[in-house]
Amino acid sequence: MIIIGEKINGTLKAVQEAIETRNSSYIAELAKRQADAGADYIDVNAGTPPEREPEDLKWLVEVVQEAVDTPLCLDSPRPETFAEVLPLLKRPGLLNSVTAEPGKPEKVFPLAATYKFGVVALTLDERGIPKDAQTRVEIASKLVEQGAKYGIREEDIYVDPLVVTLATNHTAAKVFVEAAREIKRRFPGVHIISGLSNVSYGLPYRRLINRTFLVLGRAAGMDAAIIDPLDEELVATIWATELVLGEDPYCRNYLQYYRRRESK
Amino acid sequence: MIIIGEKINGTLKAVQEAIETRNSSYIAELAKRQADAGADYIDVNAGTPPEREPEDLKWLVEVVQEAVDTPLCLDSPRPETFAEVLPLLKRPGLLNSVTAEPGKPEKVFPLAATYKFGVVALTLDERGIPKDAQTRVEIASKLVEQGAKYGIREEDIYVDPLVVTLATNHTAAKVFVEAAREIKRRFPGVHIISGLSNVSYGLPYRRLINRTFLVLGRAAGMDAAIIDPLDEELVATIWATELVLGEDPYCRNYLQYYRRRESK
Repeated sequence: MIIIGEKINGTLKAVQEAIETRNSSYIAELAKRQADAGADYIDVNAGTPPEREPEDLKWLVEVVQEAVDTPLCLDSPRPETFAEVLPLLKRPGLLNSVTAEPGKPEKVFPLAATYKFGVVALTLDERGIPKDAQTRVEIASKLVEQGAKYGIREEDIYVDPLVVTLATNHTAAKVFVEAAREIKRRFPGVHIISGLSNVSYGLPYRRLINRTFLVLGRAAGMDAAIIDPLDEELVATIWATELVLGEDPYCRNYLQYYRRRESK
Repeated sequence: MIIIGEKINGTLKAVQEAIETRNSSYIAELAKRQADAGADYIDVNAGTPPEREPEDLKWLVEVVQEAVDTPLCLDSPRPETFAEVLPLLKRPGLLNSVTAEPGKPEKVFPLAATYKFGVVALTLDERGIPKDAQTRVEIASKLVEQGAKYGIREEDIYVDPLVVTLATNHTAAKVFVEAAREIKRRFPGVHIISGLSNVSYGLPYRRLINRTFLVLGRAAGMDAAIIDPLDEELVATIWATELVLGEDPYCRNYLQYYRRRESK
């Protein structure tokens, strides 16, 4: 599974403070710990107001690139921010995210093509997040097809069918799974991704729900996740899921993971 | 999910000793703790040699029936033992198990019909456990159809598609899931059951693998499990799985479970 480390996010209080005070050692440490834990990408999200965001994100990118060689996942709702920050990037990573809102694909896909970045594609448009799986599949299809016009391959698109919290909609994860299966059926090359902790928002014992959702999402074709790679139980669940799904001959990956964990 | 408490099993050393020394308080305590933890049935397995088994199982049954009102799951490979012990039973429960080995269905199903017991049906015959899902489905079909001849309804059959350890066969759980789905498609009324800890035999961190298998099995229609009901993390996973599958409106069962757990 492709793991995107979620911890450098300015909407979290401690990270926000580190951004405001330009505390580079705090951010560098967060980057290193996630990279050491096996993150394939480090998400960087400034979470600051539009007028400050490009400068803050540039600072974050420079600090993280100084600390680790792991590729970055640039996280912003504004294509303009991507355009300002991308020239600083040392290596290809991911743009998080594009949506089907008017004008957005036309701005994000050319940037992804120019800088050879993958793109996280959220299944929402100007009407918001669709309630049903079918509309999400249609939005995903539209985005994959639009991406193709700019030369973005299926393999470089990470569709997020957007799970919302079970607290307000008890079929939220079911709809995600249905959409994921159908999107993988239509476009076998695309990745399915989830920022999965939304699923448990407002409920007790969130990590249990997140883990359980991960197992069912993985079985439905989800092969990437924006998670805390320091959550050992969650990471262990990933290896166990691939083992149980029959994707780990001789249990090699599972046993390797277990030995690394034991030797810590 | 229907939970069958597995702890009174004479193949476990402490239980074996309790059987040998007729330590009824030890057995009664095991029964009570499982009933308190929410077991729907208490499995009783003497695990002793054929010549001693009926007497030992009768003793276990009497001790457990004295301690709790929970129905029993009589566990023996020998139909002759069922015939000897069944007259003692105060209320209907389960017979664990029947197989498609020659002569077995003809002995077990009439007893189940007479005593109004459900039957755990293992998908194996004189050739052993089939490697593929298809043969397991065929054996299950044969057993369901044979049961019907004796008046056993689908709802009283608990098919166990027999997961073996992933340590020697990395597709063992995948084959189980495939068989479970197809059996449920053919016979929507039957239950799917698993003595799920076999899946992790010989591997490290077994409880993680068991939990992960439970999530995927449940998603494939498994609605009964022979487990340790005192394993809190496993039981929590059951509630979380039903929540994530969209089967728990208003998260009512999950929140109730959580409150009970917190109030302990």
